[in-house]
Amino acid sequence: MRTLNVALGSRSYPIYIGAGLLGRAELIVERLKQKKAAIVTSSTVARLYLPPPKGALEARGVSVVAVTLPDGEEHKTWETLNRIFDELIEHRCERGTALIALGGGVVGDLAGFAAAVYQRGVPYIQVPTTLLAQVDSAIGGKTAINHPRGKNMVGAFYQPLAVVSDTDTLATLPPRELAAGLAEVVKYGLIRDPAFFEWLEANMARLARREPEALAYAIERCCANKAEVVSRDERETGPRALLNFGHTFGHAIEAGTGYGTWLHGEAVAAGMLLAAKLSQRLGWIAPADVRRITAVLQEAGLPVDAPALGLERYLELMGHDKKAEGGLIRFVLLKRIGEAVVSGEVPRAALADVLGAGTVHDRA
Amino acid sequence: MRTLNVALGSRSYPIYIGAGLLGRAELIVERLKQKKAAIVTSSTVARLYLPPPKGALEARGVSVVAVTLPDGEEHKTWETLNRIFDELIEHRCERGTALIALGGGVVGDLAGFAAAVYQRGVPYIQVPTTLLAQVDSAIGGKTAINHPRGKNMVGAFYQPLAVVSDTDTLATLPPRELAAGLAEVVKYGLIRDPAFFEWLEANMARLARREPEALAYAIERCCANKAEVVSRDERETGPRALLNFGHTFGHAIEAGTGYGTWLHGEAVAAGMLLAAKLSQRLGWIAPADVRRITAVLQEAGLPVDAPALGLERYLELMGHDKKAEGGLIRFVLLKRIGEAVVSGEVPRAALADVLGAGTVHDRA
Repeated sequence: MRTLNVALGSRSYPIYIGAGLLGRAELIVERLKQKKAAIVTSSTVARLYLPPPKGALEARGVSVVAVTLPDGEEHKTWETLNRIFDELIEHRCERGTALIALGGGVVGDLAGFAAAVYQRGVPYIQVPTTLLAQVDSAIGGKTAINHPRGKNMVGAFYQPLAVVSDTDTLATLPPRELAAGLAEVVKYGLIRDPAFFEWLEANMARLARREPEALAYAIERCCANKAEVVSRDERETGPRALLNFGHTFGHAIEAGTGYGTWLHGEAVAAGMLLAAKLSQRLGWIAPADVRRITAVLQEAGLPVDAPALGLERYLELMGHDKKAEGGLIRFVLLKRIGEAVVSGEVPRAALADVLGAGTVHDRA
Repeated sequence: MRTLNVALGSRSYPIYIGAGLLGRAELIVERLKQKKAAIVTSSTVARLYLPPPKGALEARGVSVVAVTLPDGEEHKTWETLNRIFDELIEHRCERGTALIALGGGVVGDLAGFAAAVYQRGVPYIQVPTTLLAQVDSAIGGKTAINHPRGKNMVGAFYQPLAVVSDTDTLATLPPRELAAGLAEVVKYGLIRDPAFFEWLEANMARLARREPEALAYAIERCCANKAEVVSRDERETGPRALLNFGHTFGHAIEAGTGYGTWLHGEAVAAGMLLAAKLSQRLGWIAPADVRRITAVLQEAGLPVDAPALGLERYLELMGHDKKAEGGLIRFVLLKRIGEAVVSGEVPRAALADVLGAGTVHDRA
């Protein structure tokens, strides 16, 4: 088992990474205030992975309520959140009852946000079961639900007590979901870890084949990078924004094609390539760099062509992005592979060049 | 103008109390990150008090969006919260756009919670226009909405940038609302300020007549008490719970009679008297103390008889209270006038005695 720390003063917490952790109830029990917990999960994950942690917790005398939600990003809504509240109230969960988020990014965001606001905040633990959640969404305390007019429009920064990442759960991940997680893995190399990007160029095939050692190494490296960024800027007032590399375009792709058509990680992959092309168009990186990024994403099985929604539609979709400041759109761009910066206002012509180059790529 | 400080490290903020503050835009403008603000208010308050702050802000170049909500506690729901989000998105409010809560406790709770979670948190300023909000709910960062099965079940601890209390707004407060605010005023005397309680015994008639000097003094004294408590225990893990004196019973009264029948402050008044009687039943305070408390509340125009819902119904209603710990009900009780403590488990017989003594008191 590998252990990392997210250093946030009194809100610091550990990340455990390894095989067979779902049954290691001691990692969770020692942090509970009350011998009661609610495991929030989704139908698919419940079928595959609910029994080990539920059984292990109950064996240690913890009373466990299971709250099973429908699968899918389209359920990251207030209605689903309210179902969690209904169950928590029904089972008389109190301020000391911990929530355990067992699942992917959607479950983590929903359960984390439920924990942030149920009775003005209860403790929670992230137990991510997808690669995307293990390398990115379960770390750092960002929680949210979607609004009909914008992704993650309503949420909170709310840190978990611990993150427990069992790498065995990746064995059952559908190929598209594995690839979607690899998009965020590539992101860490691109924005702040050039050596890791080179490692990915050499080892992407091993990750795509799900070699356990390669996966565990990549997860640890991503978590270490994310933990450093979050420690310096918990509430995204500065450098944490760099973690949104590819996400401004990515959110536009997700919204413009209808949520659920593109997986988040797929949209981020195509979005990162748009951002890379924009960086090249501004003279910051070379065409050869764009080719290297394209090659790694393709080897991961990710889409590299953004849908041709048109400049105006992209602008409209990005205008509602949470990162919009004073009505202007700033992008996270690459100074070089391994170093991202937040741009000033980008010339419309440059944006038009890049978005005009996209071709339709149907993910349905 | 009187100025107090809520000391919370980097989240510290001032409370301004005085006449004519609604038009003093400089108190707000200096704290804005962006020359844009959304004033969240209710229909009645908008009619009476929206023009001065809106005009004063606009005169200083601040773009102002007004979001007017329906009046009443029954609207402290997710649906109303979503209306705020819709308006904020419609007007492209961003992470730097401040919310200004102009109104009573319901507006403050709704706007404060909207600020806590819109785009994972935007700045906000409390501009309370009722006595209850000026002495209690606008201070300390507690925000929430109600759930069909429990009051304030979903919310956040989220501190404002400032509290601006214009005492002129109290002139138009309906008599019942004034009295409801006085219930929380009496609470501060009872739980931690015996000298203030004696002052209230001598001056309650002046407050009930709305003498400006007396009101300003009482508001300042309440805010000073609350600021001290909140500074020591922002997230209610300890002494802040004492501020809930009368509230466990009060919430049961509100829920048991249907929200909106009893005003929150009215329910707290009757609840405080139940708690006082329970304190007497446990031998902590004398019958003469209960009579003093009854007299002050009656002079404020408040109900002193709780509705006769029956022991079982009260227990059921209080079992869902947020303060319930491990399934037991703890009460905030009085050791003496001016000193509250959190009780251990209270014997059922004592509770039956006190609740059996309640008579029906119709507030409809």
